[in-house]
Amino acid sequence: MRFNFPLIANILGLLLFLNGSFMLLCLPFSIYYEEKWLPVFIAGLITIVAGAVIWGVTRNHTNKELRKKDGYLIVSLGWIFMSLFGTLPFILTGAIPDFTDAFFETISGFTTTGASILNDIEGLPRGVLFWRSLTQWIGGMGIIVLAVAILPILGIGGMQLFIAEAPGISPDKMKPRIKEVAKRLWFIYLGLTLTETVLLTLGGMTFFDALNHSLTTMATGGFSTRNKSIAYYDSAYIQYVIVLFMFLAGTNFTITYYGLKGRFRKVWANEEFRMYFTLVCVLSVCISFFVFTAEWGGFERSFRESLFQVVSIITTTGYVTADYTAWTPFLTIIFFLLMFVGASAGSTAGGIKVVRHTLLFKNSFLEMKRQLHPSAVIPVRLNNSAVSRDITYNVLAFIMIYLLVYGVGVFALSFTGVEFDTALGAVATTLGNIGPGLGTVGPVDNFSSITPFGKWLLASLMLLGRLELFTVLMLFNPHFWKRY
Amino acid sequence: MRFNFPLIANILGLLLFLNGSFMLLCLPFSIYYEEKWLPVFIAGLITIVAGAVIWGVTRNHTNKELRKKDGYLIVSLGWIFMSLFGTLPFILTGAIPDFTDAFFETISGFTTTGASILNDIEGLPRGVLFWRSLTQWIGGMGIIVLAVAILPILGIGGMQLFIAEAPGISPDKMKPRIKEVAKRLWFIYLGLTLTETVLLTLGGMTFFDALNHSLTTMATGGFSTRNKSIAYYDSAYIQYVIVLFMFLAGTNFTITYYGLKGRFRKVWANEEFRMYFTLVCVLSVCISFFVFTAEWGGFERSFRESLFQVVSIITTTGYVTADYTAWTPFLTIIFFLLMFVGASAGSTAGGIKVVRHTLLFKNSFLEMKRQLHPSAVIPVRLNNSAVSRDITYNVLAFIMIYLLVYGVGVFALSFTGVEFDTALGAVATTLGNIGPGLGTVGPVDNFSSITPFGKWLLASLMLLGRLELFTVLMLFNPHFWKRY
Repeated sequence: MRFNFPLIANILGLLLFLNGSFMLLCLPFSIYYEEKWLPVFIAGLITIVAGAVIWGVTRNHTNKELRKKDGYLIVSLGWIFMSLFGTLPFILTGAIPDFTDAFFETISGFTTTGASILNDIEGLPRGVLFWRSLTQWIGGMGIIVLAVAILPILGIGGMQLFIAEAPGISPDKMKPRIKEVAKRLWFIYLGLTLTETVLLTLGGMTFFDALNHSLTTMATGGFSTRNKSIAYYDSAYIQYVIVLFMFLAGTNFTITYYGLKGRFRKVWANEEFRMYFTLVCVLSVCISFFVFTAEWGGFERSFRESLFQVVSIITTTGYVTADYTAWTPFLTIIFFLLMFVGASAGSTAGGIKVVRHTLLFKNSFLEMKRQLHPSAVIPVRLNNSAVSRDITYNVLAFIMIYLLVYGVGVFALSFTGVEFDTALGAVATTLGNIGPGLGTVGPVDNFSSITPFGKWLLASLMLLGRLELFTVLMLFNPHFWKRY
Repeated sequence: MRFNFPLIANILGLLLFLNGSFMLLCLPFSIYYEEKWLPVFIAGLITIVAGAVIWGVTRNHTNKELRKKDGYLIVSLGWIFMSLFGTLPFILTGAIPDFTDAFFETISGFTTTGASILNDIEGLPRGVLFWRSLTQWIGGMGIIVLAVAILPILGIGGMQLFIAEAPGISPDKMKPRIKEVAKRLWFIYLGLTLTETVLLTLGGMTFFDALNHSLTTMATGGFSTRNKSIAYYDSAYIQYVIVLFMFLAGTNFTITYYGLKGRFRKVWANEEFRMYFTLVCVLSVCISFFVFTAEWGGFERSFRESLFQVVSIITTTGYVTADYTAWTPFLTIIFFLLMFVGASAGSTAGGIKVVRHTLLFKNSFLEMKRQLHPSAVIPVRLNNSAVSRDITYNVLAFIMIYLLVYGVGVFALSFTGVEFDTALGAVATTLGNIGPGLGTVGPVDNFSSITPFGKWLLASLMLLGRLELFTVLMLFNPHFWKRY
């Protein structure tokens, strides 16, 4: 099997073209706020032209067939190319002159991570800030298609399991299926983004801030236009609205679709949603108890701060209204462990995902039953149906590789001389696409103090985590490149 | 299936009887060093009488049949009863008057962990110190039988894979098989212990210290009779001898048996041994480079300290000649990660074990190949033969449960108010049966500052880790207690 390089390049060209067009969306803000709009325009133009040229040159490819291997390449290269060209607005405006920093910030956007190297976010031109938020929203759009349509077909990390409606999809039906799913879910994505913008504006946010925060909420990205993140807004209303939309962004979009159609029984029948919902409730209540008894604030405030931080970390958004690392060592550990949970599959959230943990727990329990009855076949059941052994195996392998990559990441980052908690937190938060970590990269700090090597390492981890590991790791497997 | 309780009790009685007899072995030391010997004698007597009574009462059980379920109960209860009665010498002599502390120290012995709550080890009577070392040696003896004969039959964590000579063993051949294996391997265990004692005495150690350290080296236990552990002996010879025997104690005893018979080709043919050997060499050399360039010592000293610490942690012994947490954050992280490695299966070492990691790595790599060819059957190969999917599955489940228990342990321990690094280190070191951790339970500290709840928690983790998780966790599975 050989790769269909012309078609791969053609699709990448199209993605770049779209990427450039999105950049031009920043122009109205640059012009309205009377900033220099030319650099942003040039950035958009370069990207559009580059995309159009690549698309044009490869347009007349004779072979229309896309295979699995081509899929892996497109997904990984797509994110990398988008991030490379996405640095242009930052670099050309001089907002982030250093390429390493600009790339870190951009890929942190496209992977919806939200880790930043900026010390003064509010000092950036509004046009650039809008681009920064937009990278996350675009990344989120990509993730929805990826999670619900592409990864299941590629058979990544048991993702085939997580499609709420699961007819057997054959690779040849890939294109129509992607289109159909994408349309429906993007509509929800766009609708929720606009709804949140309206609700936040009603709460007293400026339209610009409301739009930016809505873009990064729905992407579970977490980039804020404020240095103090959501802590800047001392409004219970605004914080609760954001909590609600973070929670929705961390819900399987197909489930949200059913919810919007009023089919609540179908929503509650989904085991992952039940687990996700329960986890958020139980953790928020427990943690608010600790926050309250330690008298950091009143009852409502304790609850709100606990709820906000729990939802922000579990959905891998990464907004901050309070520094959880300053509470107690106990709560620091809880939030650290929470970084490995992740929200629902089929949402814009990163990390391991609740459904994989559910499967892991159930399987661990059944493994003991299997040892008592070695000859019996005892499958894991999810949503009332047996999960095939292949998929269970695949999910276990995914979690193992996640933790392996985590270990290797911590190992490599510690070379740069960071402290113990910083290393553990930085790798957990980038691999899980969250944002804030622990120590010197904690909730009230940023990643500017990390060495260039460290930044490239963490950028790679963001990509690995975002593309569910296999998609990227596959490319480093010599077997992948074999012709046969 | 019902439990054969009379036979279970009978075997536990026998174990207690042996335990009491071992206590009496401490008397010569108490008498020689002119200490009060009566408390130790009474402790031994109580244990012997209790064991004899239980054994006598249940002797005339009519049913001789032992089933799997009985096996799990015997193993778990065996370790618990040994530890409960094992506290008597500490309590009756007043060396450790508090029951929680005494139980922690004793189970840390029987599980060959080596975590201590003693602030002044050298202040203890010699007879009691000898008992402390002996608990580890007895625990090591138990582990050899457990790992090579019992766990494979119970099908725990893929242990059936790790027997170098693997004929199909049916449960009914359990008893003769255990006897035969135990005899041969205990002979090696005893022989190596005595050899080390002689070599250490030749290096200038007192006979008492040499014997104690040999007992705890071969058990990969790590209890020392000195407050400063092996750092007390500023002799390169002594430290290299201990490194050699720690390495041997972390080698599969069946492999050591082949080595002693001169069948080196068979030794090197074992993949786990090769990995274990390579890992120790590579890590020691790399770490000594860092220690040397930071000019903490000369070349030989840097190498020796690195080698010693690497071997001590990887074999889960836990002796200390230098405080690795004081080197650099980078090396602290390396040693922290090393706590999750463990040495060979079929040795006295705890932890996850090298062979499971080998299988995990190979399987992760192959999982990508499987995704490209979903219909192909691609098994993991170990020692040149295909590993059955059941066993691979079981090994993956084991590692996952290990990390789950780790997470829950960290979560629970953090409740007691310990710092971040202390929680992470304490749970890693007890679950892996190592000894020293990080932070306030680091290499130059001990566990005395942990709260009673924390001590009971860590004691449970030692037992869980030592018995390869499933053996203990099984008892908490309602299915286990079902009659059918």
